[in-house]
Formats: sequence, C-alpha cells, structure tokens
Amino acid sequence: MSVKKAGVLGATGSVGQRFILLLSKHPEFEIHALGASARSAGKKYKDAANWKQTEVLPAKEQDIVVQECKPEGNFLECDVVFSGLDADVAGDIEKSFVDAGLAVVSNAKNYRREKDVPLVVPIVNPEHIDVVENKLKQAAAKGEKKPGFIICISNCSTAGLVAPLKPLVDKFGPIDALTATTLQAISGAGFSPGVSGMDILDNIVPYISGEEEKLEWETKKILGGVNKEGTEFAPISDDDLKVSAQCNRVPVIDGHTECISFRFANRPAPSVEDIKQCLRDYECEASKLGCSSAPKQTIHVLEQADRPQPRLDRERDNGYAVSVGRVREDPLLDFKMVVLSHNTIIGAAGSGILIAEILKAKNII
Amino acid sequence: MSVKKAGVLGATGSVGQRFILLLSKHPEFEIHALGASARSAGKKYKDAANWKQTEVLPAKEQDIVVQECKPEGNFLECDVVFSGLDADVAGDIEKSFVDAGLAVVSNAKNYRREKDVPLVVPIVNPEHIDVVENKLKQAAAKGEKKPGFIICISNCSTAGLVAPLKPLVDKFGPIDALTATTLQAISGAGFSPGVSGMDILDNIVPYISGEEEKLEWETKKILGGVNKEGTEFAPISDDDLKVSAQCNRVPVIDGHTECISFRFANRPAPSVEDIKQCLRDYECEASKLGCSSAPKQTIHVLEQADRPQPRLDRERDNGYAVSVGRVREDPLLDFKMVVLSHNTIIGAAGSGILIAEILKAKNII
Amino acid sequence: MSVKKAGVLGATGSVGQRFILLLSKHPEFEIHALGASARSAGKKYKDAANWKQTEVLPAKEQDIVVQECKPEGNFLECDVVFSGLDADVAGDIEKSFVDAGLAVVSNAKNYRREKDVPLVVPIVNPEHIDVVENKLKQAAAKGEKKPGFIICISNCSTAGLVAPLKPLVDKFGPIDALTATTLQAISGAGFSPGVSGMDILDNIVPYISGEEEKLEWETKKILGGVNKEGTEFAPISDDDLKVSAQCNRVPVIDGHTECISFRFANRPAPSVEDIKQCLRDYECEASKLGCSSAPKQTIHVLEQADRPQPRLDRERDNGYAVSVGRVREDPLLDFKMVVLSHNTIIGAAGSGILIAEILKAKNII
Amino acid sequence: MSVKKAGVLGATGSVGQRFILLLSKHPEFEIHALGASARSAGKKYKDAANWKQTEVLPAKEQDIVVQECKPEGNFLECDVVFSGLDADVAGDIEKSFVDAGLAVVSNAKNYRREKDVPLVVPIVNPEHIDVVENKLKQAAAKGEKKPGFIICISNCSTAGLVAPLKPLVDKFGPIDALTATTLQAISGAGFSPGVSGMDILDNIVPYISGEEEKLEWETKKILGGVNKEGTEFAPISDDDLKVSAQCNRVPVIDGHTECISFRFANRPAPSVEDIKQCLRDYECEASKLGCSSAPKQTIHVLEQADRPQPRLDRERDNGYAVSVGRVREDPLLDFKMVVLSHNTIIGAAGSGILIAEILKAKNII
Repeated sequence: MSVKKAGVLGATGSVGQRFILLLSKHPEFEIHALGASARSAGKKYKDAANWKQTEVLPAKEQDIVVQECKPEGNFLECDVVFSGLDADVAGDIEKSFVDAGLAVVSNAKNYRREKDVPLVVPIVNPEHIDVVENKLKQAAAKGEKKPGFIICISNCSTAGLVAPLKPLVDKFGPIDALTATTLQAISGAGFSPGVSGMDILDNIVPYISGEEEKLEWETKKILGGVNKEGTEFAPISDDDLKVSAQCNRVPVIDGHTECISFRFANRPAPSVEDIKQCLRDYECEASKLGCSSAPKQTIHVLEQADRPQPRLDRERDNGYAVSVGRVREDPLLDFKMVVLSHNTIIGAAGSGILIAEILKAKNII
Repeated sequence: MSVKKAGVLGATGSVGQRFILLLSKHPEFEIHALGASARSAGKKYKDAANWKQTEVLPAKEQDIVVQECKPEGNFLECDVVFSGLDADVAGDIEKSFVDAGLAVVSNAKNYRREKDVPLVVPIVNPEHIDVVENKLKQAAAKGEKKPGFIICISNCSTAGLVAPLKPLVDKFGPIDALTATTLQAISGAGFSPGVSGMDILDNIVPYISGEEEKLEWETKKILGGVNKEGTEFAPISDDDLKVSAQCNRVPVIDGHTECISFRFANRPAPSVEDIKQCLRDYECEASKLGCSSAPKQTIHVLEQADRPQPRLDRERDNGYAVSVGRVREDPLLDFKMVVLSHNTIIGAAGSGILIAEILKAKNII
Repeated sequence: MSVKKAGVLGATGSVGQRFILLLSKHPEFEIHALGASARSAGKKYKDAANWKQTEVLPAKEQDIVVQECKPEGNFLECDVVFSGLDADVAGDIEKSFVDAGLAVVSNAKNYRREKDVPLVVPIVNPEHIDVVENKLKQAAAKGEKKPGFIICISNCSTAGLVAPLKPLVDKFGPIDALTATTLQAISGAGFSPGVSGMDILDNIVPYISGEEEKLEWETKKILGGVNKEGTEFAPISDDDLKVSAQCNRVPVIDGHTECISFRFANRPAPSVEDIKQCLRDYECEASKLGCSSAPKQTIHVLEQADRPQPRLDRERDNGYAVSVGRVREDPLLDFKMVVLSHNTIIGAAGSGILIAEILKAKNII
Repeated sequence: MSVKKAGVLGATGSVGQRFILLLSKHPEFEIHALGASARSAGKKYKDAANWKQTEVLPAKEQDIVVQECKPEGNFLECDVVFSGLDADVAGDIEKSFVDAGLAVVSNAKNYRREKDVPLVVPIVNPEHIDVVENKLKQAAAKGEKKPGFIICISNCSTAGLVAPLKPLVDKFGPIDALTATTLQAISGAGFSPGVSGMDILDNIVPYISGEEEKLEWETKKILGGVNKEGTEFAPISDDDLKVSAQCNRVPVIDGHTECISFRFANRPAPSVEDIKQCLRDYECEASKLGCSSAPKQTIHVLEQADRPQPRLDRERDNGYAVSVGRVREDPLLDFKMVVLSHNTIIGAAGSGILIAEILKAKNII
C-alpha cells in the first residue's frame, strides 16, 4: 500500500493534535510537515505542543520540526494538508495553500458555505467530492497544471445529525421538518482555555456561539444536491426543509448526544421498524471503497431503552460510526430518536482523515 | 401568625428530607409527626435517617420520634400531611390518610390522574384547588364531617415546563404544539442508590423511565380546565395540544434545564418581545396571597445569551421561581426558549410547601 | 450599629465578586468604592463585571460606577479597602493605598511574608493584628497622622489546615511534624479561564503552582509568635516544625478537603477523645467579640465515618466554620484526620470580611 | 501459541465483565466457562449481564451460556478460573474450586491474608508464585494428583503503591516509613449501585470501608519475603515498616492517584535522580518472560510538573504500567511523589490476566 505525505496546519491546537495522533497510527499516511505559529516554528513538535491526548505520541512524530503555516518547505511535497486552524487565521492561510496547488482538508468553518467547496461528512456524502473531481478533470482536459482545492469537514454536531438522516432520505424521500436539541461534549471547544471548569462542573451551558446556525444551514447543504453541471452545490431551500436546533454544552469529555425529531414529506411515513432496518442496512461508500478508517457498521441501532450513552458508545468503530437509539413515533412530527457521535473523530479530525482516504481511494490525491 | 401542624410521610427518603428541611425553617408550619417504615418507627429522626442535605437539621427536628405511616397518633392532629412516599406504597397509605379526614399533599404519582384530584404547580394553577374547596363546601352544606382530600404535586420536569406557558396561554390563547427536551438533574432520582456515579460521570443517560409520558400528560391537565360543576378536571385533548418530550439525565446536582418550542393556535402570533414582557409581568397567585415561600419574581427573563444555567440560576427566589432565557423565533413552531427550574423545590417538596401555604391562606386547612 | 465604608480592589475578578457579594448583605459595611482596570473604569459595575456568583447582586451595588485602582476619589473615604487583586499588580497598588493612609485587607500573596505584616486567619490568629495596633498606638503617641497598614489573608488551603491545629497547640503544646495532602476545589483558581474543563472533568491535577510552598511556609507564620517588642513576627523554624504538603486540584466547585497527620512535641500525646473535645470546645476570638460573620461553632467535629464532604459540609456557619472528621491515631505520627474548609469564604474573601469585623470591633478602623 | 481454557466466576459483575472483555481479546486464553448466580444460570451471557463496558463484547462471548458457580461442567475443563466474586460468597465458592483441583486467580479479599496464598501484583512480586510452584512440585514428587490452588490479586490501591516501591527497595534497601493519601476512581466500587452520583458529583468522599487497612497490611505482605522452606509468606513487621494510609473517593471514572512519601532505612538516602533512574530502569519479570499483556515500560517517570493525571495517563501500556511524577524530597521523610495506576487493569482484572500469563509462561497451568 502506497503511503501518502500529509501536512498538518495548526498542529499544536486541539484539532491539530488529533490529526497528528490519528496520522501517527495510520497505514496510508505519514506526517511530512507540521505547521504552527511563528512562535512554535523551528522547535521540535514535542517542545512546541502541550500534548493533551490520552495516547502517547510516538517518538518519530515528537521530533518533527515545526514550520510556519506557509505553502513552502515540506508542505509543498505533501499529498494532502489537514487544517486544524482557528477560523480567524484559516481563511488566508488555507487560500494560500490552495493557490499553491495543494489539496487541503479543513476543519475550519471559513469556506464551508462556498458554492464550489464540498462540505463532507465522509460516511454521509462522499459523492460531493465529485465536484472537486470534475474540476480536476476539466483542468486536466485543458492541459492545465493540477489545481489546489479545499474540502471542508462539517461542524461536529452536524455530522452526527446527518449520518442517520441520509440513508432515510435516500430510501423514504425528503425530510421537510427537523428538530435537534444537542448535548455537546466539551472537547469540541479545545483546551486552552476551552470551556472553563467553573462553567461546566455541576452545570449546563445552554448556548454555543454560532452552533445552531451551523447545524441548521450545513444540514441543508450536506443533504442537498449539486447543479446539473456538477460544479456547484444546491442546498435544500428553507421552504423545503425547516430545521430547528437548540445547542447545549454538557459535562461530557467526548461524544455529542442529539435528541432529534423529523417528518418525511411523503405519506404514508415508514414504520419505526422500517426506520431501524434502513439504518442497520446502511453501508457507507467509504466502507465499500475499503478505506482503512471506515466503520464496519456505519450506524449502530441500539435496542436498550437507555442507550446510546456517550461514555459507553462513543468509541464504536473507533469513533467513525454513529449510534442511534430510542427510535419511536413522535406526537408532533413522524419520529424521534437519540443520536450519538464522537465529536473529535467523525465530528472533526477523524472525518478529515477518512475524507483523505476517500481522495486516495479515488486517485484524487 | 398562626402555626399549623404538619406531618411528613416517607420522612427518611430524599423527598421527605427536603420537606423536613423546609418545614424546620418555616414560619407557618411546625413538624408534628414523621412517618417512615416499621424499621425506623420508634427511633429518633436523627437515628432513623441518613441525612444528606446541605444544611444541618436543627436539634429539635432531629429528636422527633418517627412513627409508622398510619393515620394514628400525632398524624391525626396534623393540619396537613406531606407525602414523600415511593409510588409502590403511596397508594394505600395516602388513601388511608384521606379516609381518616386528613389533608394530604403528595409528591407521589399515584393519584395525579384521578379526575377529582388537583395536580398543582402552585405558581401556575392554584385555582385547581377550587375543586377541593367546592367538595369541602358541599360537605359542610350537608352538615357532614370535613372530609379528607389529596392534592398532588406535579412531576418535576412538568413544573418547569408549564410555569412560563401558563401566563402565555392566559394572554395569547391556547398553545397547540409543544416540544421539550429536558436535561434533568440527578437529585430527582434520590440517593439510595439514585443515579449511579458510573452512569452519570462523563456521561448522559438519554432516558428516564416514565418521565416523557408524565411530561406529556400532566401538561394537559395542568393547563386544562375544570368541568362546569367544578368537580372534575378536563385536561386538554391530545388533538388540541400535541406535546413531544425527550428526557435526559445529566451530570447536574440540582436544576432541570428544558429546551422547549411551542406554537400558538391563534394567528398572528405575538412577538418575541411580547413573550418576554408577558413572562416578566406574571405574578403568581401565591405571591398575591402573600404566601411566605412565594417568589418575588415568578419568572425571571434572562437576557444574557448563555443563561439560564443550573448552577448559577437555580436558587433564584429560593428555588421557587423559574428562569427563562434565549427566547427566540423557531423555524418550525413559533418560539423556542430555555427554561430552568429547581427540581427539588418548585419541582417537588417546595411545591408541596407552597401548596400548603395556599391552603392555609384560603382557610382550607 | 455604625456602618463602615468599604472599598474593593480587583472588583470584577472572582475574589472581588465574592467580596462584593458578602458586603452587599453585610450589616456593618457598605460598598463605597469599587476599583478595577482602566478598561472597566467609568462603567457601572453591572456592565464592567461578568457576574458569576450563584446569588443575584442587588441593584444598588450593580449601579456603582467603577473607578481605577488608585488611592483617590471615593477610595480615600473608605474605612477599609479589600483587595482581590492578582499578584502581578497587587504589590504596587496596595502599597500606594497604604502610603495614602488606608487600611488594606488583601487576599494577594505579595506581602504575606513581610516581617511586620500580619498574616491572619480570623478564626485562628486574630491576635497577630496586635502588631498593627501597636504600630498605630506608637504613631498616635508620637502625634503622627494615623498610618495606613495592610493585613494579609492567608492562602486558602492554609486556612483550613491551621484552624484545627491552633486550639490543639494552645492546649497540648507544639506540633513538630505535619503532613497535608489537599484535594482543592476549582473555584480558588477563578473563572477566566481558571481551571479548564478538559483538565478537571473525570480527572485530577496533582499540582498547583506555588501552593505547597505557601502551605508549608504560612503555617509556620500563623502558628508562630511575635517578637517581644510586638512589632515583628517570628515564624516557627523549619527545625521546630516540619511540614510536608502535597496539593491536588479535584473536580469540586467549592470546599478544600485536606487529609492531614501530625505529631506533638510533648509526650505523652493526648488521646483521640482529647483531640476531639479540644476542637469541640474551641471558640474563636471573633465569636467572643460578637463579630457578625463569626461562626457559632468554630470547628465542627463530625462523627460519621464518611464526613466531612465538601458538597454537604462546606456551608456550615455560612462557610466561616471548619469541619473535622475521621480523627484517629496515625501509625507514623500521632494522629490523622480530614479537614474541610470553604475556600472562598474562610479561605479567601470571607476571611477578609471577618478580619475587617475584628478591626472594627477593636476600633482599629 | 497454545490457548488455555479460562473460566470466570462472578461473570455478570463489574470485575467479571472486565475479565471477560480482556479474555475476549486475548491471544493465549479462551473463555470456556462463565459462572454467575442461579438467577443467571442457563441464560446466554448477553441476556444475563447488563454489559457496561466501553467496548462491545464479541458475538462469540455474548452467546456463551452461563452456569452456576460450582466446580462442575465446563469449569472442570478450565486451565485457570478467574474470580470476580463478591467477598460474601467468594470464600466458599473459591474453596470448592480449589478442592476440585482447579487453579483460581481471585480478585476477592477472602484469602489474601492466608499464610500460603500468594498475594500478587504481577509487575511487582511474581516470585511469590514460587510458593505455589513448590507446593505443586512436592505433590508431584509424592505422586499425588496435581492440587488446586489460589492466587490472590491485591487490592487496587495497593497495586499502584507497591509498583514503584519494589524496585526502590530492591536497589536501595528497606523502606521503614510510608504514607499514602489516595484519590480513588469510582469504577473500583462497581456499578450496581456502586458509588451514588449524589455522593460523587461536585464532591469527595474521604472514606472507603476497609481500604486503609488493606493498603497498610497488603503492602507488608507484597514487599515481604517467604520463609526458608518456601512454603509460607513472611510479611514485613509493623515495627520494620510503618504505613499510614488515607483513602478518598473522587469524581474520576478510572485511575487511582496516590500522593505518597517514604523513608529508606539506610543512610545516606539516594538522590531524587537515583530514584527516577531506578524507576525508569525497572523491567518487570512478566516483561522478561514475554507475557503478552506485560507493559513495555513498567514504570513511566513523567517530568511535567502536573503529571500523572488519571484521564491522560491511565491507559499507558494498556493500563498495565504505572506512572510516577513529581518525585521530590520530602521535609519529613525522604521523598514524596505521585503515583497513578489503572484500578481495573493493574489494580484488578488485568492483574489477574497477567498473573495467569505468568502461570502459563512458567508451565504452572
């Protein structure tokens, strides 16, 4: 199996650390460049980062010398560059990398709403990558140099939400109403400082800045389609799909729990058993492609009354699967259920890795 | 101020302890009888109970000798008897107390659905007590002995939900659709064993047995009316009000957070500012009656984006007030907002105390 | 009762907020000046501070206009100025206030080791204030203007430790060996950012910068004496008292638990029952002086095997008392026991208030 | 590699579940018999147990039919039987298994103090197994049938404590004074009910029944020797080693933190760097034997000031290693330091597995 060269932008931050940890154990990628702020540049990674992961980083990765986040040096030799940059700097830096012809997979929010940028949950809508593939083919057809591109990872709470909805929409037709109340883990907020202990011990914070808007909007892009030229995305309209989100931060380390309800546009609606069977049967494209991180079982349908629970279920399929429980009829819409996803794996860095595996499987990188 | 004699059933349990703590500091009630299981009977309270409250119990109450939960001895002299009994024994015991002519205010669920039993959140629907008052008047008119009666305290998560809805319905007309996703504190489950630490540390349990059914049904009784004879309750029908609840247990000691959304039956709907003003203006009947535990401000409308929070807001007005935040339009229904209530005060024992204060203010006891 | 004018330095920080909350409810003090950074100066307090206390601040205090931390304006009219400043700015600012003739009670560590500055836990060593009183008398005798002075509040974990040791030393003679392993609440670290949620959820941090040194050193000053002129402190020497501290941060909001062991210099040592009786009998000087915040029972000796516990016992006597449990013989030294104290009350702001009450009772302010 | 047949007693409990999870992934053992109460007997394991582990149990193990805890049926074919039984039933059941000629590795406390029963932390004192080996050899020499035997796993907090002490004692001579204040995770108390959430959220419980006595006594047996015949254990005397333990339960899921201090009998004492080097150099016998679960690095010496931390360090070497940090001089004894160990791995079930691996490597089973 060929090994691709990977770069990581924002390498010392919490998302960057996750990228590095996952890459350090990855059979198909090796870390070739690490980028951080000017203050860290020139240092060995172990000296630049305050490593806060629960696994020890191998010595090889610890000794990589960090460079600045500029498209130069080792970064230019990377097959793919993962970005864990904060939004306030991601815009300019990621653009400079794309302009330099690099393939960027970003966890930042900056380009998610761009018309020609795929917003991808790899176990949900890998077909959105076709827009990039088409662009590359067109450039090749014109004899142009292979252009850079960017693929955005979705917001963490969006990933868990759309995972079970996609197979349902594919099988039973459009959903026209959707509510989601989230109970989100603190790891998504990073750790310096992230969520303060005084705010989260014996407490709930019923607000996460910008989160509800992301959840409501991204869902429409991810479940939406592409124009007929295959060059731009066509999110579902607000009229066709009403989404209402209420987002909360809870005292959980990893794992977003979402209590959702939804209604199908078509009548009659399927049965509870239809829903569960459809979810059980779903096999994501990444699994079919044989991607090494793809979950064996994309969606776990749990039958115990009190599951899924973040501490017990977040690690299923190494965090790349989504768990669903309590599927039942809803007095208002059609169905309600509980969805659990690992916010730093399928909701962030892990999604980036799996997207890159798909790019590799499709020979895009 | 005259002082009424109070009894407590289930005195050693978590709800019973709360009743006792509140009564020990109360200007209008004194504890006259404590009832517990046969195992505890005959012991001083301090020897019978494993006191788990954050305040020390005064010596006077510690030395009260516990008796069995039978309508005899000191209980017969009580003006009001508070029941913190578990549902598996509450049915028979409470009935025997009512049969003995006693006034029972119960936190147990057993009689909540009875047609002639008021289900009361004292800051919401004290007028439901009229059904009892009517019964007493009829008996008096017939020259009968004053009959016993029972008034039920609502489920804890119901109390928080209906508090802000009541003034809205009174002002803007019926609500016909309502969703509530709850994040409920563990104190509601008691402490022996209650919720296991292994189940709630770094975790969420997305299920509380029977809770969603209670929330959905009790809301319709509490917001509903009374038949024209004033003798039976007429809950809102399932057709007139669709309620969908999703209940979760979270790592919080006290304070239930509820993310709710709702729709008015009448068009046009009020504005967000109308809603907030209506909630701010609401003064509950118990306040007007001058009840000593009644909140000064029944509903606190918080303007900070990240409030209410259980740790910071649950003690407002000693836990007898309800806090509301994030009032905003909802893409699906009309409005969504966050409601916080203290589950062991306005959601349980405290409600019982305030109901008894109302009974006293109205000369029913 | 006369009311004294109080100022607060560092008014927007966590210690400052505590001072303000305690003062807003205080019968003997009224807030006359609030000082914060230049950024906050000129704003009403409610607009300058992100209020994070569990009680609502009264409207009167919310509307006080914040000024800079300079000895001018309203500060010059204050009878006492409480300092909740961070150590990096406390040194210069507090000195300027003392130079201006003001009485400063400070929670900062800067002047704790000064030879003529009392380091006071008000339920332990109020007699150390005599050094200041002597200084004032000397100035008066010389006909000089009343000089300013500073009294330092001890470190939070020191306060809990020395509270039970003082009466024991008074009765049974010197302690020559002492170990303390602390389990410290996060509120002591403030809230912006304070301890990160990622560091403290499902976790222990076995290190608090500088804490062990403070605990080891301050104990020797507080339990130590004064030179014969009554002008300088004479801490116990390292030879006469060996103290070993190990400090940990734990997932608790308020309340420091300390597992301690100690040995008396004199033989034979007292019995376990002697120890408990001595602690029960102890009445602190502040109580005798009738200070309004003084605990009714200075030290609570708990007999249950599993007490004291922070959540259940930290509020005893409004946080001004200390709880002791599990007094038992120690295989190595003489005794071991568990001590619990409220770190933001007797361990910080509350101590400052009680010190000021003592100053007032002694007509020093 | 040959595969040994393993049985598990107390299979549905928390320790039993851990044994089963570890065995299900083990290259050298396969589960051959599962024992539980009569109520569970006859059911498939998945129907008998309320599985509460964070990893999913493979289908094969889920379908094993549970039998009663009697030395019959499949148990008689087991090469080794792991006991996760509660102490109230372990005594009789384990004896019946030994009498039936079986090799029992038990987590229960019942036989730990027996003179001829090894009490083993496999990374510390596997040589204590020689007593059993000698017994087997004697029986073989006499031509007797191979007798059953029992080996006890130490208490969880003892395991972490003795791990770093053993290499120090081996190198620098006896320790004569030792203090340990523990901050213990809740998983050690099981989950039905285990530690109540109300007792451990925002709280510390400074008491664990029987724990301090176990820690103090077991340390002396594990660090002690064997009589000259090699048939009985000779724990260190109370005079030769004074141990003082203070045990606390803290809000941590897994991982016991222990703040310890100790003094060597010999002078001069080694230096801090000597201590650290000795710990770094230590390679446990199980590693040398090539046991599959043996840690690569037995003791991790961490240099960061705030480590080890349970959430970040408990999984080192899959929980079979112990982490040490903050090694420094102690004002009272010689040294103090912080030790972290995974209480359900090296402190319980994992130790049992590794003991069995040693038995297998030594051809005892």
